[in-house]
Amino acid sequence: GEHGFTLGHFPQSFEFSTLGGWIATRGAGQTSTGYGKIEQMTLAVRMVTPVGVLETREAPAVATGPCLLDIVVGSEGAYGIITEATMRIRPRPQVQDYRGFLFRTLEEGIAVLRDLMQHGPPPTIARLSDAEETAASLALAHEHRGLRALIEQVVEGYLARQGYRVAPDGSCFLLLGYDGVASRVARRWRRAEEICRDHGGFSLGRSAGESWKRDRFAHPYLRDLLLGVGVMVDTVETATSWTHLLRLYEEVTTAIRAAVRAGDGGPGYVMTHISHIYAEGASLYTTFLGRQIVGREVEQWWEVKRAATEAILSAGGTLSHHHGIGRDHVPWLTREVGPVGVRILRVLKETLDPAGVMNPGVLGV
Amino acid sequence: GEHGFTLGHFPQSFEFSTLGGWIATRGAGQTSTGYGKIEQMTLAVRMVTPVGVLETREAPAVATGPCLLDIVVGSEGAYGIITEATMRIRPRPQVQDYRGFLFRTLEEGIAVLRDLMQHGPPPTIARLSDAEETAASLALAHEHRGLRALIEQVVEGYLARQGYRVAPDGSCFLLLGYDGVASRVARRWRRAEEICRDHGGFSLGRSAGESWKRDRFAHPYLRDLLLGVGVMVDTVETATSWTHLLRLYEEVTTAIRAAVRAGDGGPGYVMTHISHIYAEGASLYTTFLGRQIVGREVEQWWEVKRAATEAILSAGGTLSHHHGIGRDHVPWLTREVGPVGVRILRVLKETLDPAGVMNPGVLGV
Repeated sequence: GEHGFTLGHFPQSFEFSTLGGWIATRGAGQTSTGYGKIEQMTLAVRMVTPVGVLETREAPAVATGPCLLDIVVGSEGAYGIITEATMRIRPRPQVQDYRGFLFRTLEEGIAVLRDLMQHGPPPTIARLSDAEETAASLALAHEHRGLRALIEQVVEGYLARQGYRVAPDGSCFLLLGYDGVASRVARRWRRAEEICRDHGGFSLGRSAGESWKRDRFAHPYLRDLLLGVGVMVDTVETATSWTHLLRLYEEVTTAIRAAVRAGDGGPGYVMTHISHIYAEGASLYTTFLGRQIVGREVEQWWEVKRAATEAILSAGGTLSHHHGIGRDHVPWLTREVGPVGVRILRVLKETLDPAGVMNPGVLGV
Repeated sequence: GEHGFTLGHFPQSFEFSTLGGWIATRGAGQTSTGYGKIEQMTLAVRMVTPVGVLETREAPAVATGPCLLDIVVGSEGAYGIITEATMRIRPRPQVQDYRGFLFRTLEEGIAVLRDLMQHGPPPTIARLSDAEETAASLALAHEHRGLRALIEQVVEGYLARQGYRVAPDGSCFLLLGYDGVASRVARRWRRAEEICRDHGGFSLGRSAGESWKRDRFAHPYLRDLLLGVGVMVDTVETATSWTHLLRLYEEVTTAIRAAVRAGDGGPGYVMTHISHIYAEGASLYTTFLGRQIVGREVEQWWEVKRAATEAILSAGGTLSHHHGIGRDHVPWLTREVGPVGVRILRVLKETLDPAGVMNPGVLGV
């Protein structure tokens, strides 16, 4: 910060999490598209295990056998504690130019993200909400400032006649941003605006971006608040190739909606955004809400979690894009990495933590 | 190729090597700066081991514990055979605009590489030869075409008066290139030419680039030819941070030169290029030649290899940037990855290949 550099890792949990935790869980921050997931930022680590210290070399690339650094990244404390890390840092960006767009359909927004990643200019941040999340964001926003006020002004005059609607079955909001030197950011925006327009995007301008920046770390507080007042709420996340993305989205959404209803949680509310994008595909981040049934909160949540995870794996999604395995995902780990994969995780545990004292239960080891 | 896509991986061994081999050794191609090392290109693998099949998920990113894909990449056949791989491909570039420059000193060339990687535009290919390699390339080139003819024309008229010399203690040749859409490549070259000029670079233009492209896969043939006529010849390679790069270069070069002489190989010839560059540092690739002593060729080579490797590790270089460990580097593996690291490599061997039948001896397992 004060030396003019940034790591560029800003997870939603920024106020509650640590560097060691980011590395241990293979996390991704909100600007992962520009700065990478934590595994792209981690150059070297020192992990203290019960059988000794594992220290990797600080070279920008190596070919000294299987990558031991990538065994430490994602190890979730099961093998040892990460006590030091050498990180790639970047010059702090001169400008962070974040803007908002509306798209009539999720497909049009996805086409923009894919085009930007495959043909450029790749953004620093991209966050495409489905219609449900777009509507919820506007409903939750304060009435008299930021995005809410902006949309209302535009809607009244113009937007509705152009076919953009901000109802749960309506338009999709895209937050798109470029960090960097002012002249380069300006050049990138000229091309990105063109691509958005070509795919039916309606520009909401910079104030939509500013409003998002202001509220970016607020969601963890909202979740705890909701849980405390009788609302079941949680998130699931995954990633897949562009080819499978829309089908994965539809199947996960349908499965969660059905499970909330089946568990007597009412009609429920399921909303999704795409927030980590690659040349080859993207992540999906889905939030679900329902009415909590007093006395069976945990079972009720498990039923939805189970349905969501089964849908993810059946439709070709990965078990976790950036939240790790922990204990909750252990039942599906064999389906994700196969029996040989599970055997590798277990033998690493037996070797590095023979007494089984390091964060027992995570990774299923 | 015929579908308009490229993997972008072109190692010098292109005519002799395979996709499975590139992945197994964590290789790097000549255009690794633009397209990445093989580990950045590999999205998913299928490895058949004696205890079963390990298949990783085809997601663009995952957080499902330690990265099993990165255990397969670099495994050198010790744990199993890679039978399938899903690779990231890119559109075949519209143009490949490669150009040559001369720098009065290696330091000035290094400053250009660092500037390009840290502030842009990062090149697709960059290859900076020290004075010895520059002089040798010109001596080996055919007299009447390409770089040799070009330099002679320029030297006669102009170059020498500007302080550029192509003797073993003189100037350094940089090959720099951009792949891509014509307009973007042209824009990048405008900025790159500026950076080269700012650091004292003398442009030799496109014909120097064309001449390099034509001969790019010829070196393996030359090595075999030399070995057959009584010349000891081999290469060593490493990587380190920009901060340590010049000291590493000097210590490795000095150590090899002394070892060739001590082994009665004559004055020897030691030459180096930097060919894989990163925001954080770069690789070094050193070729050494000497007179072969009949009857003790292997011992003579081992003495030089040992001296070079000791110098690399003492000066903060990694044991291998892109050639892997194999059997030759096993004596230094503990210094590179530590005792806990060696234990991990060994326990993976015992788990995946309990009978020890897979490429025995590599990785020291």
